[in-house]
Amino acid sequence: MSTRVSAEKLEAFCLQALEQAGVSASHAKIVADVLVTTDTWGVFTHGTKLLRDYIKRVRAGGLRVDAEPHVVASGPAWSIVDGESCLGHVTSTFAMLDAIERAKKSGIAYVGVRNSCHFGAAGYYAWLAAKAGLIGISMANDIPSVAAAGSRRCVTGSNPIAYAVPVGSGDPILLDIAISTVAGGKVYAAYQRGEPIPDNWIIDSEGCPSTDSSLYPASAALAPMANHKGYGIALLIESLSGLLTGASVTWQVGSWIWGDATKPTNHGAAFIAIDIASIMPPAEFEARVTHLANEIHEAPTADGVERVLLPGEREWNLRRKALAEGIDLPSDVVGKLAGLATDLGLQADWLNS
Amino acid sequence: MSTRVSAEKLEAFCLQALEQAGVSASHAKIVADVLVTTDTWGVFTHGTKLLRDYIKRVRAGGLRVDAEPHVVASGPAWSIVDGESCLGHVTSTFAMLDAIERAKKSGIAYVGVRNSCHFGAAGYYAWLAAKAGLIGISMANDIPSVAAAGSRRCVTGSNPIAYAVPVGSGDPILLDIAISTVAGGKVYAAYQRGEPIPDNWIIDSEGCPSTDSSLYPASAALAPMANHKGYGIALLIESLSGLLTGASVTWQVGSWIWGDATKPTNHGAAFIAIDIASIMPPAEFEARVTHLANEIHEAPTADGVERVLLPGEREWNLRRKALAEGIDLPSDVVGKLAGLATDLGLQADWLNS
Repeated sequence: MSTRVSAEKLEAFCLQALEQAGVSASHAKIVADVLVTTDTWGVFTHGTKLLRDYIKRVRAGGLRVDAEPHVVASGPAWSIVDGESCLGHVTSTFAMLDAIERAKKSGIAYVGVRNSCHFGAAGYYAWLAAKAGLIGISMANDIPSVAAAGSRRCVTGSNPIAYAVPVGSGDPILLDIAISTVAGGKVYAAYQRGEPIPDNWIIDSEGCPSTDSSLYPASAALAPMANHKGYGIALLIESLSGLLTGASVTWQVGSWIWGDATKPTNHGAAFIAIDIASIMPPAEFEARVTHLANEIHEAPTADGVERVLLPGEREWNLRRKALAEGIDLPSDVVGKLAGLATDLGLQADWLNS
Repeated sequence: MSTRVSAEKLEAFCLQALEQAGVSASHAKIVADVLVTTDTWGVFTHGTKLLRDYIKRVRAGGLRVDAEPHVVASGPAWSIVDGESCLGHVTSTFAMLDAIERAKKSGIAYVGVRNSCHFGAAGYYAWLAAKAGLIGISMANDIPSVAAAGSRRCVTGSNPIAYAVPVGSGDPILLDIAISTVAGGKVYAAYQRGEPIPDNWIIDSEGCPSTDSSLYPASAALAPMANHKGYGIALLIESLSGLLTGASVTWQVGSWIWGDATKPTNHGAAFIAIDIASIMPPAEFEARVTHLANEIHEAPTADGVERVLLPGEREWNLRRKALAEGIDLPSDVVGKLAGLATDLGLQADWLNS
């Protein structure tokens, strides 16, 4: 069950909802673009499905509409941005654009963010850099949900990290992952289907791997990807997003969904841009990355696999189809958007079709 | 079966062997420090065990003793270092020290390396930054040995990545990993014991996971950690270490052990340093990271686990013991060093004790 809608219609609905909630036109444009782009990638867990909860927080005051993210400290190749509890997408876009400008002068730049909130799909911000011809890396911290090697409860956030590498006129290489083995939503979906899960998805309240999907989230934490490796990467992300920025860290971060909606969550984030053109002639880089991409596409495949894909390739193909034919929104997304329309007294015929 | 030797004696033996092979005293000092430090961490796969093969390559000419790594291009916050086929440890140390100096001025710096070779344990270079009060990240490419999601042969190198975060006067947080689920040596050890392996360690020649340890390496590739996530991170490392530096990439990289020892391998590497003091008062950072470390140490543990460790904590404890009581070199390491002594006509009583 899905509902097909054009990206334009979906974006117009998001803009209408955000502005109705008091978000400025310029901020609304950014948030709508992040969310709709994410849906065109087929990453529906992080797209417009979340708008209703963002707007609840806007209306409660925990997300501010009367402020702007701004640089509070900076040097040649770095800055710290205070998000002033604006929508995380607005602050993160501001931060990556700042990183891009600084990297163009210095070769590389780090922009750390504090007083942010959930920023949606990390990959969007990495992509901003790749669109401008730079390599982009984006990451953020979040409330603890993932166990560490040897722990019996969650220790780190699922701390997303994404990167994008431009491939000339082709689609960028784009990876966007959390450091848990799988997202909590996948565990919950298995539970709803009454299915057991692989033994590397969750850690039970005794600190042991479990295949019982019903334990999550009340009595289990997500397992870190690749055990100590994922846990270790989570702490690098926490260091760059949380420790070094002045943002809240682990248990001090507010839950943007379940926490007090009148209070800031103070998420942290970090954005790194590397300017290829400062370092190597862009045409040479393009030739090198294209050679690598071709080599991977020509690699022998497992049975049933048409070709080995580059990170993001599936998402770019989905996006092309979505922009040409419309986005097939799953029913849970449509339900959330319909609820949002009710909250705000908005009309949207396509939501009822 | 192990042989106990003091770090000083082991280092003296390494220096003697390197200088005997024609390596300058200054280069030998660097290589010996990297390798012996790695052994003190208990990471014997990447320590002095490798010296015999490095020296074979030095004597054959594929590793040069008559050259110095040097910066061939640079900007405010970046440089490209040509290793001139010196020992990878020499080039990598030079590169990270350059990154540290640039980061102190700019806040962050990227140093890319070409014409390098195997650099040993990535963590050593990240630690150089942490010792100087900076956050360090180090990485390198290598010959393909790891499958991609959907491939039936190896596509990327095991591409090591390490980071270190200083924790005031305490041990730095230090993670050093390859992007494969496990190192090839672990698969081979299971085979030698006649044991099956977990189904996420290798990918067979049909592109399917296998528990048959006898397939590796002839008929299987290592599996990437966390499937597409590890594969994706491998390509980020390849982008920063290989594509952007002018080094060889994937199948063009030479095998430093099995390849023609008279020819350069042209490995690539990348080093990033972030200067905490540029961005936040170091005492404030220290308080923040110490709070996080304490929080993790106090996390509830699984049965049989004394406490949740920070990345690197096990290695720092081993190092303290090794420096105080001597390093317990496993027999395979001792065998390699004895072989090296024979190659070069060196005497070392402790090798025969």
